[in-house]
Amino acid sequence: MDDTHISLAHGNGGCFMRELIEEIFQQHLYSSDVNTQVDAMSLSWAHEHIVMSTDGFTVQPLEFSGGDIGSLAVHGTVNDLAVTGARPHYLTLNVFIEEGFEIARLENIVQSLARAATDAGVSVVAGDTKVLNRGEGGGLYLATTGVGARDRDLDLGMHRIQAGDKILVSGEVGNHGIAVMLAREQFGLRGDICSDSACVLPLTTALLPLEGLRFMRDPTRGGLATVMHELCAATPYGVQIEQTAVPIADSVQTVCDMLGYDPYYLACEGRVVAVVAADEADAALAHWQALPDGENAAIIGTVSAETQQVILCTELGGERFLQELEDDPLPRIC
Amino acid sequence: MDDTHISLAHGNGGCFMRELIEEIFQQHLYSSDVNTQVDAMSLSWAHEHIVMSTDGFTVQPLEFSGGDIGSLAVHGTVNDLAVTGARPHYLTLNVFIEEGFEIARLENIVQSLARAATDAGVSVVAGDTKVLNRGEGGGLYLATTGVGARDRDLDLGMHRIQAGDKILVSGEVGNHGIAVMLAREQFGLRGDICSDSACVLPLTTALLPLEGLRFMRDPTRGGLATVMHELCAATPYGVQIEQTAVPIADSVQTVCDMLGYDPYYLACEGRVVAVVAADEADAALAHWQALPDGENAAIIGTVSAETQQVILCTELGGERFLQELEDDPLPRIC
Repeated sequence: MDDTHISLAHGNGGCFMRELIEEIFQQHLYSSDVNTQVDAMSLSWAHEHIVMSTDGFTVQPLEFSGGDIGSLAVHGTVNDLAVTGARPHYLTLNVFIEEGFEIARLENIVQSLARAATDAGVSVVAGDTKVLNRGEGGGLYLATTGVGARDRDLDLGMHRIQAGDKILVSGEVGNHGIAVMLAREQFGLRGDICSDSACVLPLTTALLPLEGLRFMRDPTRGGLATVMHELCAATPYGVQIEQTAVPIADSVQTVCDMLGYDPYYLACEGRVVAVVAADEADAALAHWQALPDGENAAIIGTVSAETQQVILCTELGGERFLQELEDDPLPRIC
Repeated sequence: MDDTHISLAHGNGGCFMRELIEEIFQQHLYSSDVNTQVDAMSLSWAHEHIVMSTDGFTVQPLEFSGGDIGSLAVHGTVNDLAVTGARPHYLTLNVFIEEGFEIARLENIVQSLARAATDAGVSVVAGDTKVLNRGEGGGLYLATTGVGARDRDLDLGMHRIQAGDKILVSGEVGNHGIAVMLAREQFGLRGDICSDSACVLPLTTALLPLEGLRFMRDPTRGGLATVMHELCAATPYGVQIEQTAVPIADSVQTVCDMLGYDPYYLACEGRVVAVVAADEADAALAHWQALPDGENAAIIGTVSAETQQVILCTELGGERFLQELEDDPLPRIC
């Protein structure tokens, strides 16, 4: 296409929009049998238990170490399906582009999105593009909706959690939040902390054979502490987290210490929190540690019948309550 | 909830966001068995042929005569499914809200969305909310993704179109575009033109029994002329439209004449264009005219083997080419 920047005409349904879709989205995103000129896509389906999930993405800046809004839009939705025990199959994509956005940059982001979709084994089957007036958008917003299928007999959820169950996390927490924060260069800080943004399907699939697997969730906005609060709200139990057991990269901890952030509240985009029966916790940990994305996995705590709070057992033998998140020190991280 | 305006904390995954979802979205949108605190929703499914569609909505202003961005977000996606011959079942919803947006206004829009979903017979099964910094959003953007099911034996599409087929439209064109334009009060114009925004499922369902039904589409962005251009691009044929046969409200034509707009390019959000075998065109028309939303339906033209262009046969016996849309006189109408 001849244009280098998005104009309102790229969103009006006419020839410029067709050109944009054909040359940017069709090229990178859709298999050749997907007709981007129809609004709905037919899907053949063999299973009966379908899972759907949807997510919007407004991360600022759009690119950061270890990913960009395109890969993030795939991982976010694919991971929401994966933690239910489903295998993701299809994605739809909504794109809101601000007038004046550089097309080369858009193309890079769409390529990144396409790679992430291929790596996760999902097909993008439908999409829609809108252009926002200059000044009425933060460059680019995305929304993805995913459809997956899962075994009808699989029963995972907070309702299965029992006192004494173990809590595991698949890797270091907080990397995504800090990577995005550093990309903003707001505090004059620089660093090589890479986002953990990734597809967690290998991690979730590895635990599915365990009968003692109760529940999985990806600790995104609000981080590990928020998943723990959701557990306390949905069950009669509380949780005790061992501070020294939670994997946190030294570099992440250093930035947190400097700026007064708490890594337990920072978003991850490629981690899984799992609750597993105590007698299978070691097996679950071994499954995870055998995977490339699970080498830092750890058993970090226990479900407790004694309280309905989230208690962090500190290095020095004290206890600290992790409160429910109110104000987010790092908004717009996904 | 105590707040009257959206703050960034409403998008951070913590307690304010939970409150917003529970008190605004859960209340209006989801049946009581939908858990809004999980990211993905399981769906039982009996059919095997699934259709998906997705659409973003950035209409300005958010409210207009005959609808708002909420009802529009349902109609847009439901109609994309309906014109494939599918029955829509499920919707997911993405909400991008600008910081400072009035919560009472948000609630009105969500209520309108919920009513439209109920009327169309679809359930909203998953959603996600993001808050945009003040000045980085046009108040509210929505994206909806729909899933429907259709008869495996149904074969509709441009590939079935033959020379001599008749082209029908289910009602007056251009009402939505002009209603939104008037709501902007840009030109000092006022009027009582009401958007045609509606669910077209009764219209599409009515034609499905006809063996001669070739193809249906809703003429949204780019209007009737754009659907006709899509037909010319996808088939070896052209179309001849009889100007006097196209239903256009006098009030819409008057505004178009004053401002130099062409009603053939204006968006509809509750109309269907159908291509039907010539010998069943009268039957199709009768089916539509028997419906409340089809009383102004008309046979407006013919598929022609002689040209690949869109020709408007004018009142005075002349011919005018309707060119492909380049620049849109009315952006942001959906």
